[in-house]
Amino acid sequence: MDEFELIARLTQQMPANPAVIVGPGDDCAVLDFGLPQHWILFKTDAVVEGIHYDDRAAPEQIGHKALGRCLSDIAAMAGEPTSALVTVGLPRDYRPERVEAIYRGLNRLADQHRMAVVGGETTTSPERTFFSVAVIGKVKKEHCVLRSGARPGDAIFVTGELGGSLAGKHLSFAPRLAEARWLAEHFPLRGMIDLSDGLASDLRHVLRCGGVGAELLSDAIPISRAAKARYRDHLSPKRPLEAALTDGEDFELLFCAPAGDAVAVLDAWKVAFPRVRLSCIGKISAEPGIRLRDRRGQETLGAHGYIHFAQP
Amino acid sequence: MDEFELIARLTQQMPANPAVIVGPGDDCAVLDFGLPQHWILFKTDAVVEGIHYDDRAAPEQIGHKALGRCLSDIAAMAGEPTSALVTVGLPRDYRPERVEAIYRGLNRLADQHRMAVVGGETTTSPERTFFSVAVIGKVKKEHCVLRSGARPGDAIFVTGELGGSLAGKHLSFAPRLAEARWLAEHFPLRGMIDLSDGLASDLRHVLRCGGVGAELLSDAIPISRAAKARYRDHLSPKRPLEAALTDGEDFELLFCAPAGDAVAVLDAWKVAFPRVRLSCIGKISAEPGIRLRDRRGQETLGAHGYIHFAQP
Repeated sequence: MDEFELIARLTQQMPANPAVIVGPGDDCAVLDFGLPQHWILFKTDAVVEGIHYDDRAAPEQIGHKALGRCLSDIAAMAGEPTSALVTVGLPRDYRPERVEAIYRGLNRLADQHRMAVVGGETTTSPERTFFSVAVIGKVKKEHCVLRSGARPGDAIFVTGELGGSLAGKHLSFAPRLAEARWLAEHFPLRGMIDLSDGLASDLRHVLRCGGVGAELLSDAIPISRAAKARYRDHLSPKRPLEAALTDGEDFELLFCAPAGDAVAVLDAWKVAFPRVRLSCIGKISAEPGIRLRDRRGQETLGAHGYIHFAQP
Repeated sequence: MDEFELIARLTQQMPANPAVIVGPGDDCAVLDFGLPQHWILFKTDAVVEGIHYDDRAAPEQIGHKALGRCLSDIAAMAGEPTSALVTVGLPRDYRPERVEAIYRGLNRLADQHRMAVVGGETTTSPERTFFSVAVIGKVKKEHCVLRSGARPGDAIFVTGELGGSLAGKHLSFAPRLAEARWLAEHFPLRGMIDLSDGLASDLRHVLRCGGVGAELLSDAIPISRAAKARYRDHLSPKRPLEAALTDGEDFELLFCAPAGDAVAVLDAWKVAFPRVRLSCIGKISAEPGIRLRDRRGQETLGAHGYIHFAQP
């Protein structure tokens, strides 16, 4: 049983209550606590030593990543993070200075977003350290963007550049919080998700939630310099386009908007965020699946984003 | 550096913001989201295989404990839990049926308290499973009870019976949610905490927060049958009174109230919760430290609850 099958089985049984606006299956849970204009966002995530980071990571980067992963999910709802709790599992021979440095990185990112870190727990984890972070945020009800809602004809956008995150970005990425809020305030977004498993995989969540498919334009997909360099330097066997489609941990945003707004989105973005790329990479279709188009034709993307046709 | 020193160093650096009513150092964080009558409570905790449970535990009990630990902290603020997220770390060879059964126990406890389980994350934890639970709740502002506020002369109470939790209660305890809310609605409580590290250790947090000390009456401390049986059967070297003072994971409540209310608290409790014991175990004093009194005299409790004087 793979992770997605397990999650599907677990989430079927979970109890709900009237406060739940969005339960399992979106980037964050959305809760109604009776605030007139806002919903509460609730998210947890964990990083495990040797899985999400290794000895090459500076401790400050580990803390940055531990919190940043949750903030990327808050961004994917167009929300604003308010506070975090950190549960840390430590081997008995942990080095206090290293733990403090990890928290320093986490605190710095929290501070950048005017978040509070309001405590947590320490526990024993004999073999390896883990950090489990929980974040509460809020979102204006009319600006909350779900994974669902993408409609045939919608333009599909991604922020930043994709692929090759392992070269370093996975430890230092900037969660797209301000960008997402700005987008949601100015345009009718829908079908938004943060790219943690890879473009092809995460886009599939949006498509499934909307009961739709997608046509992507190969040339429009923003390939990172890191993805190109890793292929060129034989650090990764993936061709750059495949890396951009399938590498995880980009922590960029993917979202959809009506086709009629596409040019306005791109133009206004350039003024608002001149240093962050925004790309329209294709459109939503009624036909299920993801099709990738280039000059030579069209190919359906395999389940894991694998590209079947030969690349130059 | 022990756990408490590490926590003290980590919590000094944590960023705050205006939403924080209570940050690190109480049973839950308390946040102001602008609700007219309520504050938001926020808590995380984790259970790690081989540390908090082992193979003897039924999987449903593991889930019960993972959530119950957080609920006990929500109870310690006189709050009401609303929703939970669960992050689970799993070895690659995990058994899906066992994970599902663990969630079943967690979901059942959530359902008993009309909580929603609104998702979470799965991640890889190669050597051992862990469950990190985050809970959001709420509390009426006028009923929120902190660890601080205990005053000399206050009566000290504990719910239930203490010690010997390892015999089974640590996996099946009932978080004192209804009891705490009832208490806070009817009496001016202060200095409340849930007993997770052991009476002596947890009482010290209340005393430190209040800048006070305590005098306990040996005969008034409610010793569990399990604590007596474990000593009698040579399963624990601790005499029953010492077990009640120092064993962890009782998940009962300790709280203080004005001495003048003590009899009323005990009388009203018997009517409201006839099946749960409530004991007045002593009083708050101006002099720091914990003194334990019995017929033969008085002894100061050591830092870890160790009783220096010879027992019969």
